[in-house]
Amino acid sequence: MSNIKPSLAKGTRDFSPQEMVKRNYIFDTIKKVFKKYGYAEIQTPSMENLATLTGKYGDEGDKLIFKILNSGDFLAKVKPDLLTQANSNAITSSISEKALRYDLTVPFARYVVMHQNDISLPFKRFQVQPVWRADRPQKGRYREFYQCDVDVVGSDSLLNEAEFILIYQEALSNLGLSDFTIKINNRKILSGIAEVVGKPELIVDMTVAIDKLDKIGLEGVIKELLERGFTEADISRLKPVILLDGTNEQKLGSLKSVLAVSQTGLAGIAEIEKVFAYVTGLLKADQVVKPDITLDITLARGLNYYTGCIFEVKTNEVAMGSIGGGGRYDDLTGMFGLKGLTGVGISFGADRIYDVLQELNLFPESAAAGTKVLISNFDEAAEIYALPILQQFRNAGIAAELYPSSAKLKKQMSYADDKHIPYVILIGSDEMQNGRITLKDMNSGQQRQLSAEEIIELLKD
Amino acid sequence: MSNIKPSLAKGTRDFSPQEMVKRNYIFDTIKKVFKKYGYAEIQTPSMENLATLTGKYGDEGDKLIFKILNSGDFLAKVKPDLLTQANSNAITSSISEKALRYDLTVPFARYVVMHQNDISLPFKRFQVQPVWRADRPQKGRYREFYQCDVDVVGSDSLLNEAEFILIYQEALSNLGLSDFTIKINNRKILSGIAEVVGKPELIVDMTVAIDKLDKIGLEGVIKELLERGFTEADISRLKPVILLDGTNEQKLGSLKSVLAVSQTGLAGIAEIEKVFAYVTGLLKADQVVKPDITLDITLARGLNYYTGCIFEVKTNEVAMGSIGGGGRYDDLTGMFGLKGLTGVGISFGADRIYDVLQELNLFPESAAAGTKVLISNFDEAAEIYALPILQQFRNAGIAAELYPSSAKLKKQMSYADDKHIPYVILIGSDEMQNGRITLKDMNSGQQRQLSAEEIIELLKD
Repeated sequence: MSNIKPSLAKGTRDFSPQEMVKRNYIFDTIKKVFKKYGYAEIQTPSMENLATLTGKYGDEGDKLIFKILNSGDFLAKVKPDLLTQANSNAITSSISEKALRYDLTVPFARYVVMHQNDISLPFKRFQVQPVWRADRPQKGRYREFYQCDVDVVGSDSLLNEAEFILIYQEALSNLGLSDFTIKINNRKILSGIAEVVGKPELIVDMTVAIDKLDKIGLEGVIKELLERGFTEADISRLKPVILLDGTNEQKLGSLKSVLAVSQTGLAGIAEIEKVFAYVTGLLKADQVVKPDITLDITLARGLNYYTGCIFEVKTNEVAMGSIGGGGRYDDLTGMFGLKGLTGVGISFGADRIYDVLQELNLFPESAAAGTKVLISNFDEAAEIYALPILQQFRNAGIAAELYPSSAKLKKQMSYADDKHIPYVILIGSDEMQNGRITLKDMNSGQQRQLSAEEIIELLKD
Repeated sequence: MSNIKPSLAKGTRDFSPQEMVKRNYIFDTIKKVFKKYGYAEIQTPSMENLATLTGKYGDEGDKLIFKILNSGDFLAKVKPDLLTQANSNAITSSISEKALRYDLTVPFARYVVMHQNDISLPFKRFQVQPVWRADRPQKGRYREFYQCDVDVVGSDSLLNEAEFILIYQEALSNLGLSDFTIKINNRKILSGIAEVVGKPELIVDMTVAIDKLDKIGLEGVIKELLERGFTEADISRLKPVILLDGTNEQKLGSLKSVLAVSQTGLAGIAEIEKVFAYVTGLLKADQVVKPDITLDITLARGLNYYTGCIFEVKTNEVAMGSIGGGGRYDDLTGMFGLKGLTGVGISFGADRIYDVLQELNLFPESAAAGTKVLISNFDEAAEIYALPILQQFRNAGIAAELYPSSAKLKKQMSYADDKHIPYVILIGSDEMQNGRITLKDMNSGQQRQLSAEEIIELLKD
């Protein structure tokens, strides 16, 4: 066995018990909402055939896919001249036939196509699993991270879009966030604008430039639009829509007149209006905090991928990028030969949400709950006396430990402190004689003598 | 984008919603017990540095580790003569510096060493994560599968061993299993036997042969022992211990006389007796089903790894290999330069437990619970009427869906059937007029008209 000082692979993380409890709190809270809205969990393998992933994420994405080396004598089948040329690109497909999942969307598409005879449409699924990307690691960017996706495939109803808004609202509220904005846009509105300006072929350039309004301001966007092939005249036509202001209704009103001649643009507006109508209908039920939804025409999410509504969520309590996003994409499964299936979905940025909750101190006490009571261990007699009491606690559903040796009390107390165990039980000769044991509240320092049954009553919640 | 017929990577699996609910049921049930016994969850990355894993699993194990191809121009740094030789083994470390987790034990050891200043001992952790092995796939053997491990490091108390017995007992009972045997042995007893026979250097050969008693019978074991270097005389001394019979107490009694001259052997017996005493003490509490514990001298688990108690669990209800196992290993972290830490742990074979529960039909109804009620969608008026009702259900914690379009009722009903949704609500013009909606019980076919509030009362549990 080699004797090396161990380290983590670059860009990866361990999660401690404290971190795991908090991460599970986030995932459990979100999953519970997914289920209430009729979504069911699936999982796909970490490894996919390389051919399943290649070509789905663009050239840059392909480079970031982690490939798995074939097992055994992987060079045996490689042509000798490929080896002497030392051409990494050319050789890759000969020595690697599997790769790690890069996102959850392509495996989901593969899943739908492979299981099309077993699933009934619309198929509502969520998936919370790690993905791997060979990105250069940096603060907040890891090579292994969890994605948390919820999608429905096979339904073009805009009720789905409306429900995703409520899923965001409910999940993030349940996590304790109180001030966040759900931005909505529609790809067809962006297409309509490009059409009206007369440069439909430049739609990608336009959205990329407009997407930067927050970062580089109007001047920056204009500069970029000029660089990307728009004229001053185009830009004067674009300006009113880039700087659109007012309530959602006012914005939609303005857009309707700007896009009056664009079928596509008007269809996008109608979709947004229908989504809003569904949200209003759903919110007629009581007890729901109204979501803050903003039509944001600069929202393009850089992607040439969405075809209808686009979403993004931003917290207003902490400076942080988006904590979620998604949208409608037609033809999800076309890449695997199953045409005509439309999908819509959103995802939650779990790592960022973690950082937000941490910064706002929003993790509840219960998200630190491990062992509730530690029974100290003075000597063998006390240990024997403690055994059935220990088990009594557990039978009552209380997480309990007996310190496993009769170490110094100070050591046992600092063990309880380190593990954030809120109660310690002291059993000495007094306690064994009178049958009442001492319960110490580690927060207040208060001690009192009680029976095991009384302590169980006290600690059960 | 390529247009290929998609397939799964060899030896990997998708998990459908129905399977996920059952898998989660198993993991949640087991984790809940871990927590009650004071264990906390950690997670480690899927990828480790190759050097962290290499040399820990023997030569055969090393071959089964999935290596990850370095990103970018991975051949650039390889010596040209290595390439022309086409020697796969020699080139591997030049083109791969990371690998996929092979088990949870080595990453746990790395975790303990790297975080030794942050954790307080004894450190009680559980970990439920996938591992990857380049095994030849076959029935029941996958290249990606979950391990479910619970270990404590830094405590030599035999209370830990006793608690693991109760953890098995409680977790498997909670899963509905009623007839299973927890086998226990101690490596020191095996060492003592080898010592008494006078062949301590053949201990591995002896345990490997004895371990096969169940499979090849006494004759087979004797044949193998002869082949492995034991004499007829050795075997006549071995026979009584191999064929040991009676209660645990009787077996321990016989062993004590056989091993009277072996310090090590007697120490092993004393450890088993202490574990039994702890179990008896813990079981003085009420409400606990007594575990079926059997001292099994043939239990060796083939491994040269354990140093103290060894466990294995076998269900008696279904023909199946062991559904769990573990033991005490000294010097867990020595491989990473931290000496003198002892550990003990067990694991649950989740895939096998799944198969057992499936075969015995032990998955509870609740382990299929997805959407509880589907609201059918007749037309636009009914849809609008349904929206706040839909949300009322969800606000009451009831998983509910509205069929997202006004498809034919038959189609909507078969959607409910396929998703095993137990209730469907019908809203037609009658219902909208009188404010009472029709609830159809999909199991009984029974229909009745109720208010939304009455339905909520009925479906809440």
